[in-house]
Amino acid sequence: MKCLGLIGLGMIGGSIAAGLKRVSPQTRIVALDVSEDALRYGLSEGLIDDIAPTINDLMRMSDVICLCVPIKQLPTLMPALSAFSGVVTDVGSVKGPIVRLAEGLWGQLPANWIPAHPIAGSEQHSVRAARDDLFEAHKVILTPGNDVQGSAVELVSNLWQSLGAEVVVMSVAHHDDILAQTSHLPHLLAYTLVDVLAGFGDEREVFEYAAGGFRDFSRIAASDPVMWHDIFLTNKGPLLDRLRTVIEALEVTATLIEEESSEALLERLSRAKSARDYFADLQVQSAKKGA
Amino acid sequence: MKCLGLIGLGMIGGSIAAGLKRVSPQTRIVALDVSEDALRYGLSEGLIDDIAPTINDLMRMSDVICLCVPIKQLPTLMPALSAFSGVVTDVGSVKGPIVRLAEGLWGQLPANWIPAHPIAGSEQHSVRAARDDLFEAHKVILTPGNDVQGSAVELVSNLWQSLGAEVVVMSVAHHDDILAQTSHLPHLLAYTLVDVLAGFGDEREVFEYAAGGFRDFSRIAASDPVMWHDIFLTNKGPLLDRLRTVIEALEVTATLIEEESSEALLERLSRAKSARDYFADLQVQSAKKGA
Repeated sequence: MKCLGLIGLGMIGGSIAAGLKRVSPQTRIVALDVSEDALRYGLSEGLIDDIAPTINDLMRMSDVICLCVPIKQLPTLMPALSAFSGVVTDVGSVKGPIVRLAEGLWGQLPANWIPAHPIAGSEQHSVRAARDDLFEAHKVILTPGNDVQGSAVELVSNLWQSLGAEVVVMSVAHHDDILAQTSHLPHLLAYTLVDVLAGFGDEREVFEYAAGGFRDFSRIAASDPVMWHDIFLTNKGPLLDRLRTVIEALEVTATLIEEESSEALLERLSRAKSARDYFADLQVQSAKKGA
Repeated sequence: MKCLGLIGLGMIGGSIAAGLKRVSPQTRIVALDVSEDALRYGLSEGLIDDIAPTINDLMRMSDVICLCVPIKQLPTLMPALSAFSGVVTDVGSVKGPIVRLAEGLWGQLPANWIPAHPIAGSEQHSVRAARDDLFEAHKVILTPGNDVQGSAVELVSNLWQSLGAEVVVMSVAHHDDILAQTSHLPHLLAYTLVDVLAGFGDEREVFEYAAGGFRDFSRIAASDPVMWHDIFLTNKGPLLDRLRTVIEALEVTATLIEEESSEALLERLSRAKSARDYFADLQVQSAKKGA
């Protein structure tokens, strides 16, 4: 890869640029963004080498293009990529709609397009929050199509591995279901709980007494509402399936409390605690691997 | 206060002792606990001055007694306190059941009993996790009865203020409702979500891909299941009311996503984000006050 073209220079695009500049300073990076401020910041901080005025300029300058924009901007941007023969990848947190867009445009996901999703991020979304180690010891999921170019998978895989990430390959449907559970559902619960609590209180008095439990929830609800609105709607199917299961589980928990089914309630809480401990162990192992 | 008697030397009791030893080293502290290990640790670390072999010994040695045990141990411990004429306080996270226990034993909450609840803690519960600054810049809610001894309220108030806490007085019912919302409900949601996710996955595969959103939830589910089982059942009424409202709100959110009511969904998420930002501001102000 001689030149990486970034479409979108936010927190994720900026962190890819920052990481790549650290591990592979000879690779040129050019960027296209609607925000001139983001592009100027990227240039002045040395994250990018050049600004591409148009998508055609970006395609001419780059041999690999990475789309780091909100999913809803893809319908406008994707048609132009028909003319690009290099490798294309993206970082969208829902993969089904991207593949369906490609199928609508080109009949199938092009052989040179490798959908990718880095499982990393924060509630920040500006390029000013970019970090060169954001992806270290994090997983990146690739969901290549059936008729994929092997060399393109290898290139995108190597790109992420060079940033310290662990690359995993799975199907689009499996990816979207896993993410519905581990990311979209927690965010939806957090937004709903915070909204409900704000609605209960007399002048938001409840927040004055919020301790650890609520603090952890509310941090999740600090994320960009527009981004999460888009994610919830784009991953509608898997998210609704899982949400309905959670609502049913909450109803079961409510019944256990209502009927004071002490033993069954304790069993449920203990099972969750043991699953949580298993998860914490995984995190410790993964942190050790990263160190 | 010449001598504080602690019934229960866990994380909260231990942190009261540690804090008091720092700000008021001349105050003697004696403790009673079923765990000899906890008592020995308390003695060797200088958290307590003496061990009370029985509750009668503790009453004889102390002029103030603070109950720092799980609520379900109170029915066994409370009758003995009839013989105690000093000030009694407790740190239970649900106040209604304690007042009802007292009413059952003595007709009403005794004038020398000041129910208190420090809004501080963590998923730790051993005395080894005790910290002398645990209560600094945290709220402590007192819920005294109607026929209370003014001097007892003042004493308990001063005790908590000396540990750096901000003391607030409110009714038992209001306390239990506020805590149902800000603490018990988030814990219940976290336990349920973690349990549901653990149940979905093939060999808990989902946990391998869990990023920030899930991590914040799962930390809450690391708390002691026995303690939370007790809290959920003792604060059954207010908790179930609030839980049912959250279930309804989740059903509304599900419908908005199902019907792709883009505007209403975004409005809901933005409202939550603005409530969260308000909460974050409060926290910053409170941290400044504490500093």
